Amino acid sequence: MHIVKIGGSLTYDAKPLLKTLKDYAKENNKNIVIIPGGGEFANVVRKIDKFLNLSNSLSHKLAIKCMDLIGEIYSEIGNIKAYDTLFNLKREINKEKIAILLPSKILISTDISEHSWDVTSDSLSLYIGNLLDVKEIIIATDVDGIYDKFPGGKLLNIINANEIQGLTSVDKTFPILLKKFKMTAYVVNGKYPQRVIDILEGKPNIYTKIVID
Amino acid sequence: MHIVKIGGSLTYDAKPLLKTLKDYAKENNKNIVIIPGGGEFANVVRKIDKFLNLSNSLSHKLAIKCMDLIGEIYSEIGNIKAYDTLFNLKREINKEKIAILLPSKILISTDISEHSWDVTSDSLSLYIGNLLDVKEIIIATDVDGIYDKFPGGKLLNIINANEIQGLTSVDKTFPILLKKFKMTAYVVNGKYPQRVIDILEGKPNIYTKIVID
Repeated sequence: MHIVKIGGSLTYDAKPLLKTLKDYAKENNKNIVIIPGGGEFANVVRKIDKFLNLSNSLSHKLAIKCMDLIGEIYSEIGNIKAYDTLFNLKREINKEKIAILLPSKILISTDISEHSWDVTSDSLSLYIGNLLDVKEIIIATDVDGIYDKFPGGKLLNIINANEIQGLTSVDKTFPILLKKFKMTAYVVNGKYPQRVIDILEGKPNIYTKIVID
Repeated sequence: MHIVKIGGSLTYDAKPLLKTLKDYAKENNKNIVIIPGGGEFANVVRKIDKFLNLSNSLSHKLAIKCMDLIGEIYSEIGNIKAYDTLFNLKREINKEKIAILLPSKILISTDISEHSWDVTSDSLSLYIGNLLDVKEIIIATDVDGIYDKFPGGKLLNIINANEIQGLTSVDKTFPILLKKFKMTAYVVNGKYPQRVIDILEGKPNIYTKIVID
């Protein structure tokens, strides 16, 4: 099973990637689970939090619910079924080969993660990945990967989780969880679906691989 | 039982109104149910719908879920308990005298309304009011009431539902439902909590009363 987290920053550009992944999954008989980011909905939570100083717990809960909203949108525009439990997702994915996860029920019922803006949908997808027992995760976002400095830096083909400084497109907790769960991650620009396919195929292209020791 | 719908446009200004309503409910032994609007979250749905041309059903469902998000925020900043079923709300409100309704479970499970942007949280509060068998509803928003023309018009103290032209702060379906459910509505600026209290007390102040024949 492969996990592709499609960031909410790709909301307006996700359709070609969703279609490519759906076709690829069926043609190659591979199971792909898509985890959505919270996108502009989560940005509204950030804004309201900033003005009204919400509790960390409420901001966390609302941001998680925003992932479901983007997930429902990906489900419609990609014509891919969405599930809110791993029970149903695992039972159905062998038929469809691809599924969208609406993660709020899992994440709130298990209360598996810290309640903090340091844990965004990137890290939350690692928790889901761990529940699904996968060892690789693809983070599709709107930048080409991780740069040695940003802006103006050089794109890195590979980086060790220990070297991620927080100045990147993934959240602060992400490298810590990668090590904890012994996972490898890829950060890739989802506006170029072939790059995502090439990761799935183990082929070189423009993306950053994050490895652990 | 009284229903006060607090529009999402009041997100950043709702705290004094929530506090005033909570104190009033306890001191006067009146039950008040607060229904949230979808606010900036629902605006994100509108924006995404505009760009991606979502189905009416999905836009409707997401906008309803946005009401829950604002409701959870009102619950925290007002220190008022929130309920997602009328069963639990009715069982608990006599203790607390005031409750916030998170309406998505009710509205999606009953699928009680048309799936259209003509049905916003204003009209959805009328459906909830009808389920609660109330005959009056207060719509707290960020304008002083309904004007004979806008901008630049004169605030109306009273208007017949038949005369509402759609050029107002309430949605298109609202007057139709008012007549169907035989309800009276008040549109009031929620930034002035005393105006809302004066409606509850039957006293004159700055607001618009919408009557039916």
